[in-house]
Amino acid sequence: MSSTGMVSKLIFISAALIGLLSFYIYNIITIPPEVPQFDLNQWWGPYPIDLNRDLSIRPFTIEFTDVIINDLRERLLHRREFTPPLEDAGFTYGFNSNFLTQVLDYWQNKYNFKDREQFLNRYNHFKTNIQGLDIHFVHVKPQVSNHIHVIPLLMLHGWPGSFREFYEMIVKLARPHPSYNFVFELIIPSLPGFGYSEAPVRPGFGPAEMAVVIRNLMRRIGHERYYVHGGDAGHIVGSVMATLFQDEVLGFHTNMPVLMYHPLATAYTLLGSIWPSLIVEKELESRLYPLSQHFQRHLEESGYIHIQATKPDTIGAALTDSPTGLAAYILEKFSTWTNYEYKKAADGKLLMKYSLTHLLDNVMIYWATNSITTSMRLYSEACSKRNLALKLDQIPTNVPTWGIKFKHELIFQPDSLLRLKYKNYLHSTIVEDGGHFAALEMPDLLADDVFEAVDTFMEFHSGKNLKQETQVQPNYETAKTIYEFTVRNINGKDVKLDRYKGHVLVIVNVASQCGLTDTNYEQLNELYERYAISKGLRILAFPCNQFSGQEPGTHREIFNFAKKRNVKFDVFEKVDVNGDNAHPLWKFLKRTQSGTFGDFIKWNFSKFIIDKNGVPVERFGPNVNPIDLEPHLVKYW
Amino acid sequence: MSSTGMVSKLIFISAALIGLLSFYIYNIITIPPEVPQFDLNQWWGPYPIDLNRDLSIRPFTIEFTDVIINDLRERLLHRREFTPPLEDAGFTYGFNSNFLTQVLDYWQNKYNFKDREQFLNRYNHFKTNIQGLDIHFVHVKPQVSNHIHVIPLLMLHGWPGSFREFYEMIVKLARPHPSYNFVFELIIPSLPGFGYSEAPVRPGFGPAEMAVVIRNLMRRIGHERYYVHGGDAGHIVGSVMATLFQDEVLGFHTNMPVLMYHPLATAYTLLGSIWPSLIVEKELESRLYPLSQHFQRHLEESGYIHIQATKPDTIGAALTDSPTGLAAYILEKFSTWTNYEYKKAADGKLLMKYSLTHLLDNVMIYWATNSITTSMRLYSEACSKRNLALKLDQIPTNVPTWGIKFKHELIFQPDSLLRLKYKNYLHSTIVEDGGHFAALEMPDLLADDVFEAVDTFMEFHSGKNLKQETQVQPNYETAKTIYEFTVRNINGKDVKLDRYKGHVLVIVNVASQCGLTDTNYEQLNELYERYAISKGLRILAFPCNQFSGQEPGTHREIFNFAKKRNVKFDVFEKVDVNGDNAHPLWKFLKRTQSGTFGDFIKWNFSKFIIDKNGVPVERFGPNVNPIDLEPHLVKYW
Repeated sequence: MSSTGMVSKLIFISAALIGLLSFYIYNIITIPPEVPQFDLNQWWGPYPIDLNRDLSIRPFTIEFTDVIINDLRERLLHRREFTPPLEDAGFTYGFNSNFLTQVLDYWQNKYNFKDREQFLNRYNHFKTNIQGLDIHFVHVKPQVSNHIHVIPLLMLHGWPGSFREFYEMIVKLARPHPSYNFVFELIIPSLPGFGYSEAPVRPGFGPAEMAVVIRNLMRRIGHERYYVHGGDAGHIVGSVMATLFQDEVLGFHTNMPVLMYHPLATAYTLLGSIWPSLIVEKELESRLYPLSQHFQRHLEESGYIHIQATKPDTIGAALTDSPTGLAAYILEKFSTWTNYEYKKAADGKLLMKYSLTHLLDNVMIYWATNSITTSMRLYSEACSKRNLALKLDQIPTNVPTWGIKFKHELIFQPDSLLRLKYKNYLHSTIVEDGGHFAALEMPDLLADDVFEAVDTFMEFHSGKNLKQETQVQPNYETAKTIYEFTVRNINGKDVKLDRYKGHVLVIVNVASQCGLTDTNYEQLNELYERYAISKGLRILAFPCNQFSGQEPGTHREIFNFAKKRNVKFDVFEKVDVNGDNAHPLWKFLKRTQSGTFGDFIKWNFSKFIIDKNGVPVERFGPNVNPIDLEPHLVKYW
Repeated sequence: MSSTGMVSKLIFISAALIGLLSFYIYNIITIPPEVPQFDLNQWWGPYPIDLNRDLSIRPFTIEFTDVIINDLRERLLHRREFTPPLEDAGFTYGFNSNFLTQVLDYWQNKYNFKDREQFLNRYNHFKTNIQGLDIHFVHVKPQVSNHIHVIPLLMLHGWPGSFREFYEMIVKLARPHPSYNFVFELIIPSLPGFGYSEAPVRPGFGPAEMAVVIRNLMRRIGHERYYVHGGDAGHIVGSVMATLFQDEVLGFHTNMPVLMYHPLATAYTLLGSIWPSLIVEKELESRLYPLSQHFQRHLEESGYIHIQATKPDTIGAALTDSPTGLAAYILEKFSTWTNYEYKKAADGKLLMKYSLTHLLDNVMIYWATNSITTSMRLYSEACSKRNLALKLDQIPTNVPTWGIKFKHELIFQPDSLLRLKYKNYLHSTIVEDGGHFAALEMPDLLADDVFEAVDTFMEFHSGKNLKQETQVQPNYETAKTIYEFTVRNINGKDVKLDRYKGHVLVIVNVASQCGLTDTNYEQLNELYERYAISKGLRILAFPCNQFSGQEPGTHREIFNFAKKRNVKFDVFEKVDVNGDNAHPLWKFLKRTQSGTFGDFIKWNFSKFIIDKNGVPVERFGPNVNPIDLEPHLVKYW
């Protein structure tokens, strides 16, 4: 056959395929799949069903017994000589065996098993039998005064993670937050087949079946309506819960906001490689395109999915038997998934963001429970024809949803595509840092985001109008207090200032590139830390670019700048403070507290003190350091 | 954006993509890549280069030392409790851990290390340093009489195989074959990084670099021109050798005849899903189509490629440390790759075709040499951008090539596509049985095929006309001996009967579905075994469908029928024995030895004895059993 004939036939066939494709897409657009029905009591334990089983919630304690520890140390001691890494290979061929030696030496000799056991037991653990499986969970119930609401939050870990990854966040989430009048009651299960939760004994236990078990766990604990946070596998299970139980899940917060199997989203993504602006904001384009580059990266990083989706038991046999193998297999992910570039380093820069102790806590949970094989089987079930045929990602949900997108997350999907499924996708927080293991890597930032998301979910449910166009400002000439004004926070969400009623406030205009920046940020932080809890001080910072253009960045850049400086106080959207376009709040501030050489704001870091009634009471110039406000603030506590 | 607009844009883009694709394909068709140049002395050992290194060929002995054995037994004894398999899962989630227990118990308690060490040492082993790497090889030099030619044959094993896989074939290949006047001198290396051959210490050692080392090994041994056999990775390296060293490789025999990366072959394969007859013979269509089914199978089975191509060192850390993991990882392949259906069985039907001893011989080689990590790195190198950019599969070669295609091989590619690269692709042997590990599973059949292939390669080089149209038969009325006739063997290749000069022959017409079939095949085999070596008896069987249609099958079916019965004598292409279209040989036989009730052949299994001069001397009817020919044959020895 001639090559020309060949080419023309190829074109003909491709045209036919496009016709079919179009029809297929048309169907997808117009006919969303039906919500599948599940047996909510399906039995996953061994048969026969135990009809007299204990359905109570039993306290549970984590134990690293001497048997476990001695056996483990023995195996680490007698580990076999490694194959040396290739010259200068870093982590590019997988876990570098030179560095692995260091990790294992630490595990064997320095990791304090008893201390860590105690650390893991610092929160209350329980087990209860759901559908034939003993399900383990951490339960943190904060004790707070009556005027603070306690909101149930289910937190779902991923693979190769565990309940342990949320420990740094628990502190933040279960304690009153200066900006909100609620805290969280946390329910943190081990997913079935992970850690201390039992695994199903027969095939067919995919993300949907897991979602049913977790939902039943929440009912057993007494929660019929609750919020859900998840990442990685926790995102997938959480998303299914938000799909199947739309009346029970009050809001879904995810740090891996993606649709895994959504042909239309895939088609749009391909289309976007020609017209990116169709689906993704300009400043995020590089997180998705060029597609070839991201696809190449994904291909490099997804071997584990491929093997776990097809032969989990084979690789499981090796990882069950060898702590060396288990540590390498799990910890490799903590390098590359935190930052793709880390693989170039001989130590995978594992210690840049984590301590060996924390990393090994997580490995220990897999080791002590011998659960790596059953954890990996989830991939087989998730990729099974049966599960894919459910098309769960294509079923729309009305549950309000909020994503946080870290810079180095494995997959990025624009909001426009997420909205194909999440009909009330309220917001994406964009972070110019961080990777896949956000709970461990940036727990404070992630906890703040959960607070803000749940606050927004509650507004959503209370029917408050979220549309920003409706923002109505009072006349600054006649306003009496700052509480009448509305500003926008750094995420673009309206904040009525009456939320600060009863607090003494410092309002300040800030900039990132000013000679005063370092001192002011540092001392504002200090001031806040000293008086936020004890005296209810709040600091409201407004970025402003009107002084030599020293705050030129986008909101996201400013947000990230503030996060890098570990700013704890509230940073708002950039505003003008002088001129006709000055924000009404600032016009009001200047009217009520005029300046020494005129009302206008002279420079970055001008400061106003507002008393507990919302009235501006003092004004200070840029050269007054924040810490010097202390004696003045005293008057208003 | 409306869905209609979306669809029309998709169509537009697809059309544009087709345009690009066509251009791309056009380029590929018209411009074959250039043959890349390699540094034939590139150094792969540690620097600095050792200028005084020993370049001799040193004898080598395989040792399973007590240290190795005791350490291994210790690990097997202390293996950790396995995760039980899911109910009725068989091998579908990977190696079944119940059956794994049996394998490991056998290894620990019954595998006779010292016996096996002796078994492996039954052939001569050597090591020699090539380009900084100590390369191990088995060298079998047959001692034969002068009139038998000794032909050098390089045999290349695959992953997860070793030199061990050829042991059952060595016996066949290094001893005179009744049908040929040559035997093989065998050179069977451990590929660099596998078994007893050293691995390179830096990245970049792909199949091409490996081909260079092996070629240099052949030179060191003293062979500048030789034949090559390979399967799996051995196919890939062998194919590169046949591409880079076209003047050195005299012929390439492969039991995995595929082009791995050949866009045009891929395009044709896709095209063939609509017009299969364009590229594949009707009777082999099901080995390739429906494509979706084969692709699905390939997806299921290729997780190991994905992980080995990206993170070999991570998984290597586990398999280095745990004999349990190593056995599961390697032996899983011997189940599924032998027959995809075996995965449904609880024991993966591993013992259907292999013994545990033989399987563990191979695992032992990986274990004792701790070479699993370096062996897996070959996938990283083969899939590297650098290696793929060489486009080795798209460079044509003139080396005569012969493939054997087993029923359950992982990938099937029709001859039409193989010819895109192998310009002298002479023949495919089609086997309706067997899988990926042919050397271990069907050593006799594979060895016979190698003999026939090399015989054909030699004809090719001697310029003999291979075209079958030119077959000229003598006049059967005037012919003097059978040597004047030409027949076709079961592979459709012409065989002039003068190759049987000096042998006593039995010529018989056979059928598969006759009441006489069992007895005759059995006794013909017996006769052959008794007298082939001792007296030079040869048996020539001609399938014939003229008696109640009891030989209805295709050549392939007849071939496989004969192979199943372990037929050792020569089976030819189906012929007519009566009527105008009877084969001239049979007309000749009937003329020279007329029958009792007329010349015509009465039924299946009529027999003629031919003396050492090619003259038919006796004739027997179907009811005379082969074994009853004994007293008659005696006269002609």
